[in-house]
Amino acid sequence: MDDRAGWRPVARARTYELVIDRIEEQIVSGQLGVGDRLPPERDLAQMLGVSRAAVREAFRALEAQGVLRMAVGTGPDSGTTVAALPSQALTRLLRLHVALANFPMADVVRARIMLERESARNAAQRATEAELEELRELLDEMDAPDCDRERFNDLDTRFHVAIAEAGGNRLVADMTIAIRESLRRPLLAAFDDLGDGWFPIADDLRHDHRLIHQALLARDAADAEAQVERHIRSFYRSAWLQDLG
Amino acid sequence: MDDRAGWRPVARARTYELVIDRIEEQIVSGQLGVGDRLPPERDLAQMLGVSRAAVREAFRALEAQGVLRMAVGTGPDSGTTVAALPSQALTRLLRLHVALANFPMADVVRARIMLERESARNAAQRATEAELEELRELLDEMDAPDCDRERFNDLDTRFHVAIAEAGGNRLVADMTIAIRESLRRPLLAAFDDLGDGWFPIADDLRHDHRLIHQALLARDAADAEAQVERHIRSFYRSAWLQDLG
Repeated sequence: MDDRAGWRPVARARTYELVIDRIEEQIVSGQLGVGDRLPPERDLAQMLGVSRAAVREAFRALEAQGVLRMAVGTGPDSGTTVAALPSQALTRLLRLHVALANFPMADVVRARIMLERESARNAAQRATEAELEELRELLDEMDAPDCDRERFNDLDTRFHVAIAEAGGNRLVADMTIAIRESLRRPLLAAFDDLGDGWFPIADDLRHDHRLIHQALLARDAADAEAQVERHIRSFYRSAWLQDLG
Repeated sequence: MDDRAGWRPVARARTYELVIDRIEEQIVSGQLGVGDRLPPERDLAQMLGVSRAAVREAFRALEAQGVLRMAVGTGPDSGTTVAALPSQALTRLLRLHVALANFPMADVVRARIMLERESARNAAQRATEAELEELRELLDEMDAPDCDRERFNDLDTRFHVAIAEAGGNRLVADMTIAIRESLRRPLLAAFDDLGDGWFPIADDLRHDHRLIHQALLARDAADAEAQVERHIRSFYRSAWLQDLG
């Protein structure tokens, strides 16, 4: 009998992951804020009792996530500093999450309804005239006869993102954008799958968008919320998901 | 005059970031799914025309985000495979996002109200008897005379997180948890700042929690939503933020 049968190494975190944990703790506790400089690799390695390589790997991983900014040289901007996490980092991770099917599509759509109702309500109260005009221009572009499905999808994404931005709550906008962006490819695939069934559905979508826009112009928050929810539900029901509960 | 005045290196992505982009593209387009194996470092480096070091750094960065799983050895599980991104990765990023992005606290609280209304509505419809009982136990623990502010805050976090989990929408729950967790430390600081004013407020919080629990037990989704919103608003109004709009 093999003495090692049934034995395998204990799952343990790699050293660089422990370094990441320490850095994140400092950020979440408020000890480290945007623009603050981290100790040099050599010093941090000594403070944490790990190798310089582990610190370097942790820095690289956090840089790839947009948490740290690493600049070479000796000027005032050199060294490793805490970056203002770009919204893009969240968008990117959420998109990967949805792509790896961690969430049932119906859950994603329900989250989308919740977020976009909030954005629409805020936008009805706070959108500037310029923002309302921008929304109108997007809808006009979607009416162009040469607007194919891919272009339509891009404009559609921009329409929903612009409402989120106009709502003025940065956190809600970032989450709305991340979820709408994560749906860009699956939506385009759904548009393509519809074949000629696409044309009447595109007309419905255009009509829905005009109703949302009118509610925003009228500064009618309740109507804007209701129109957004109706729009999202009716599209998924007709094109894709039967059961949204 | 210095010939180099005004000139600085063009901002360009590092090579390993380009490798990350390629891998993410493959995932988002559906070419690579959970469990799929990536080519060995050496082969991928050749295919992409980059150094092995750049591929290794990209693998490490994606491993730290939970996107890839790297296993050494020669068995069937060895090599670099696409992982099912753990929800934890999203929670973690959202928590960092809230800590770093300096979202105005009022925006975070409004996002919290939106998310927890949705969670409460879902939980009223779907919570199991065991989940409802767990909520009751948390409330009983919060009533204990020796429950200090830190313990109260932990139990309070667990109460709100448990409602999100009971709601059954994984994406909404992850966002709710991330935001509630990101508030754990600032809330504790707010509790401490209240001095003796803490005691009547803690009583209000306990009372609010019981009302939420009763609405869930009664399977009254509308009441559960309303009670959660009232609870969150009244706490921030009395303890912290005057103006939630």
